[in-house]
Amino acid sequence: MRATYLLGDCAVELREVPDPVLLEPTDALVDITASCICGSDLHHYHGPAVAARPIGHEFVGRVAEVGSAVSTLKPGDFVIAPFTINCGSCEFCLQGLTTSCLRAGSWGRTNSRDSACQAEAIRVPLADGTLFKVDAAVDDALLPSLLALSDVYGTGYHAARSAGVREGDTVAVIGDGAVGLLAVLAASQLGAERIILMGRHADRTDLGREFGATDVVSERGEEGIATVREMTGHGAGKVLEAVGLLPAFEQAIGIVRPGGTISRVGVPQYATGPVGREFFGPNVTLTGGVAPVRSYIGDLLPGVLEGRANPGRVFDSVLPLDRVAEGYAAMEARTCLKVMLRG
Amino acid sequence: MRATYLLGDCAVELREVPDPVLLEPTDALVDITASCICGSDLHHYHGPAVAARPIGHEFVGRVAEVGSAVSTLKPGDFVIAPFTINCGSCEFCLQGLTTSCLRAGSWGRTNSRDSACQAEAIRVPLADGTLFKVDAAVDDALLPSLLALSDVYGTGYHAARSAGVREGDTVAVIGDGAVGLLAVLAASQLGAERIILMGRHADRTDLGREFGATDVVSERGEEGIATVREMTGHGAGKVLEAVGLLPAFEQAIGIVRPGGTISRVGVPQYATGPVGREFFGPNVTLTGGVAPVRSYIGDLLPGVLEGRANPGRVFDSVLPLDRVAEGYAAMEARTCLKVMLRG
Repeated sequence: MRATYLLGDCAVELREVPDPVLLEPTDALVDITASCICGSDLHHYHGPAVAARPIGHEFVGRVAEVGSAVSTLKPGDFVIAPFTINCGSCEFCLQGLTTSCLRAGSWGRTNSRDSACQAEAIRVPLADGTLFKVDAAVDDALLPSLLALSDVYGTGYHAARSAGVREGDTVAVIGDGAVGLLAVLAASQLGAERIILMGRHADRTDLGREFGATDVVSERGEEGIATVREMTGHGAGKVLEAVGLLPAFEQAIGIVRPGGTISRVGVPQYATGPVGREFFGPNVTLTGGVAPVRSYIGDLLPGVLEGRANPGRVFDSVLPLDRVAEGYAAMEARTCLKVMLRG
Repeated sequence: MRATYLLGDCAVELREVPDPVLLEPTDALVDITASCICGSDLHHYHGPAVAARPIGHEFVGRVAEVGSAVSTLKPGDFVIAPFTINCGSCEFCLQGLTTSCLRAGSWGRTNSRDSACQAEAIRVPLADGTLFKVDAAVDDALLPSLLALSDVYGTGYHAARSAGVREGDTVAVIGDGAVGLLAVLAASQLGAERIILMGRHADRTDLGREFGATDVVSERGEEGIATVREMTGHGAGKVLEAVGLLPAFEQAIGIVRPGGTISRVGVPQYATGPVGREFFGPNVTLTGGVAPVRSYIGDLLPGVLEGRANPGRVFDSVLPLDRVAEGYAAMEARTCLKVMLRG
């Protein structure tokens, strides 16, 4: 089969590799229908050259074969795979914090393992706990939104849910990438009355408005903070930070209302930051983290199947797998928002 | 009247000063029955020498005179004063976040204002919103616990409440000062099943056990972290940090369970700190802040009046006001936990 290998230094390569095989009785093999490129893949892509390794952690597909201990899946099942491997039965999985699974750990299926999914097929460890079976007919129109459930939709939802967004809230979303836009969608679904999207790419913020943003603020830094404070009086009660860079975190602190909450889903690219009196004086809460998307699929799938939510709109480019390098280049150049790869 | 003046460089002085007078129609004058010395006063006490200024922000007393716009209080009323001035009617006061009062602001009655309370009498601005009237007979036995409601009991309660402590929780409390001990009491009142108190002063942790601590850990740093992790398996779900120093914050991060909450009520003595992947990976929430104690007095007073809670036990020394300097020296030397001053 063919699989994408990361080389670093702005290069990926589609290689012919052996087909995956079952290694553990809890494994399943999945033929990948569609996968996609994540903003976090880009960090590795434009990073330094590395020893070639498979890449990709978001996919949907059909089960091809299951190990002897897999009990809930059978060949032919259509499945959504969250971006982490989960056992489904440890205390953290049972409480919904699948990213802290004791058997697979956070970021279980990291890019350095054999299980990477910008490929034609994949071996999925702990398949019963990891894969979510879709009991519905799947057609091409539905595919992007199902694929979004493997990461970005659940991650945007995690931002809003961790922040406790509810009916009538004023929410600010920092970042107009796929996760930020889906945080807008999630905030809207949870009943936010006002959703201020902070982003500078008009085509993206236009989609954000369709997802429910009531206002768009294109300024950043001090200027952006001043604008949001002026719009809201004392700041936004819930701030969803979907970037991960220190200036975005500082911007979140600048626009949050006293007693409010900052919820982060952009992986912090900083080790230390302001965490003293900016938080303490106004009683600001900091929450969020790596999204346990596996535990959200069940909540979010009905809206997708019933056509109430269309998170797949974040995929503005669909490429066959053999054009994966083009997909990386386009996302790197920001000429597209998010690339879907057909397996 | 006599009032305590801070000089810095480990000195305070009781001075004869003019009696306070009403300056605004919303003011009240209060004859102070008892006040106390706060850990935060000590920061100024052992800090550099300063121009003499009045000090103290926790007191109970009897209303002596009210301004023409004061409607809920009359001379003779016994009142508890929270450590901030609150208007009681702005949007933040109405939502219970009295420390973000729009008229008085956080830390409204700072030590640099005329209104300081290690004195015989005080002028209280915005008296209707600030003072809490006690509709019960007050005797000497009750006095320490009523005084504790002006700061330390409400602050400990804020730690537990912000963390969302509830029935069955495992809670760790960092710090065996008055606030840490009262965080133990509050966690116990909120139903925590296991309360691990981290502190090294046996006389204090003994009181912590009486307040509800089920375990005491005297080790700090890596050793303390290892002990708590071993005791709890994956850490404490709720960590109440009542110190404010960076090592205590790091200790909190070390002992919190994935998906858990760190609630701070010790004023951070650091501007930046670890706030990246330690929080993000395990989905740890950071909350707490300056306690809006005014809004908690109504919840906590019944327990005190009915004898169910005795937070006043943190006062292990009672001195007449003219021995205030002795009180500071004792708290500085840690020969006593918290000093009550009789007005």
